[in-house]
Amino acid sequence: MLDQHEIQIRVRYAETDAMGFLHHANYFVYFELGRTELLRAQGGNYREMEEQGLFMVVVSLECKFRSPARYDDLLTLRTRIAKVSAAKLEHAYQVYRGETLLTEARSVLACVDRGGNVQRIPAAFQPELLDQQSRIDT
Amino acid sequence: MLDQHEIQIRVRYAETDAMGFLHHANYFVYFELGRTELLRAQGGNYREMEEQGLFMVVVSLECKFRSPARYDDLLTLRTRIAKVSAAKLEHAYQVYRGETLLTEARSVLACVDRGGNVQRIPAAFQPELLDQQSRIDT
Amino acid sequence: MLDQHEIQIRVRYAETDAMGFLHHANYFVYFELGRTELLRAQGGNYREMEEQGLFMVVVSLECKFRSPARYDDLLTLRTRIAKVSAAKLEHAYQVYRGETLLTEARSVLACVDRGGNVQRIPAAFQPELLDQQSRIDT
Amino acid sequence: MLDQHEIQIRVRYAETDAMGFLHHANYFVYFELGRTELLRAQGGNYREMEEQGLFMVVVSLECKFRSPARYDDLLTLRTRIAKVSAAKLEHAYQVYRGETLLTEARSVLACVDRGGNVQRIPAAFQPELLDQQSRIDT
Repeated sequence: MLDQHEIQIRVRYAETDAMGFLHHANYFVYFELGRTELLRAQGGNYREMEEQGLFMVVVSLECKFRSPARYDDLLTLRTRIAKVSAAKLEHAYQVYRGETLLTEARSVLACVDRGGNVQRIPAAFQPELLDQQSRIDT
Repeated sequence: MLDQHEIQIRVRYAETDAMGFLHHANYFVYFELGRTELLRAQGGNYREMEEQGLFMVVVSLECKFRSPARYDDLLTLRTRIAKVSAAKLEHAYQVYRGETLLTEARSVLACVDRGGNVQRIPAAFQPELLDQQSRIDT
Repeated sequence: MLDQHEIQIRVRYAETDAMGFLHHANYFVYFELGRTELLRAQGGNYREMEEQGLFMVVVSLECKFRSPARYDDLLTLRTRIAKVSAAKLEHAYQVYRGETLLTEARSVLACVDRGGNVQRIPAAFQPELLDQQSRIDT
Repeated sequence: MLDQHEIQIRVRYAETDAMGFLHHANYFVYFELGRTELLRAQGGNYREMEEQGLFMVVVSLECKFRSPARYDDLLTLRTRIAKVSAAKLEHAYQVYRGETLLTEARSVLACVDRGGNVQRIPAAFQPELLDQQSRIDT
């Protein structure tokens, strides 16, 4: 059962700011990449999920910035599912450059339809999660 | 008849890069602001146009960068309609900091429906343009 | 003594995503605008602060997203200083569309020099803060 | 002699817009990735070049958008050096999704020092280019 995934991300020039560092708002774009690739590694596909009318919307975020990243740094983003319920997913993120932890974060996402109504996360897309859910929620 | 409009844009920190300048890709975001505000000043509204199923898509762009902008610079963007036809609009842009011309650009946009089929630009949204069109195209 | 400031921000097309909403990462760019303008309203200037070798770096963020914003929405961002210490500032943010609260957030920033060493926030730039600090910290 | 390079880029959710497509300004960020990776494949490194006080600044851009890209599309970006002179580089770009050409572009970059003065592109970083230069310019 896969509930953690690592990807590598190289910091783009356009993502840096005048301080010479990766601008902090871009970490949230990276976390989204982490979620997309974790889901793909689980056998799901977020684009197909949206095509079927279900959307994962970010409900809350928290992030601690410990050390800055620079242009062309090759970062490792570790994305982990921390908690699952019927309609919500909590992810935890860690960004490393080599052995150095740069950033840690958590997010909560809710599953909604086009009208914004909360929906059950489809089993077809996330078998491991429902599996995990029974493990976690009971 | 209004076919030129000026707005002021303050350079955001997140828009700068490690060189300390406004990253060049952000000028294209500014030009889009210029088009939105020119249309609003003409009495149109791009959001309403999209809600009615018509979209202005960028077909081509060209841009010359003469001098860089920095964080917190207050820039003046002049947006002008350079040419109009039934389904296309050509805009010209100039970005100034005070009297200094920083950037000049041109874009061509086409009007399409949701399926990407080319459409006539709706008269209701752009009376001046159709007006101008007869002036220019004849 | 000014420790709260409101600005209006119009959602840019480039800031939306395929869901049709303002992408959540862009709120952090807005909060930065709120800090810049609060400091300017206090008589300070962040660009000058950086030119003197002092930088405010984001240490932590947390954000709750209650309701989405769309292209061309005119939002009100309220930025407030929630807590001040010698080297850190805590801001609180609220984003409204009309009377509807869309987003709430908090951030902690630290003052550092070019080498990343923590520094005292300069009095010249933030007289009200030091004033306020004695009020809050005692 | 390597003067062309291909990379694959997956469209990020944050890079899409309310139309459901990759926002056009993001192509210019992609082209920058193409230049970075072409230089790396040639044995150079743009970050080191900047650390030595030399910067490649964009002087002009032109781009034709033929067909849109969507979230999660896996695109191929082909970056080619079209022309070289002592202080300028002209690149040509093509973005494909499978066999479909989505976008074509050209850019001119100049080599400058920290003060913005035009400089000769360092041989140490671009041996192939100087090689090529004699081929092209004569």
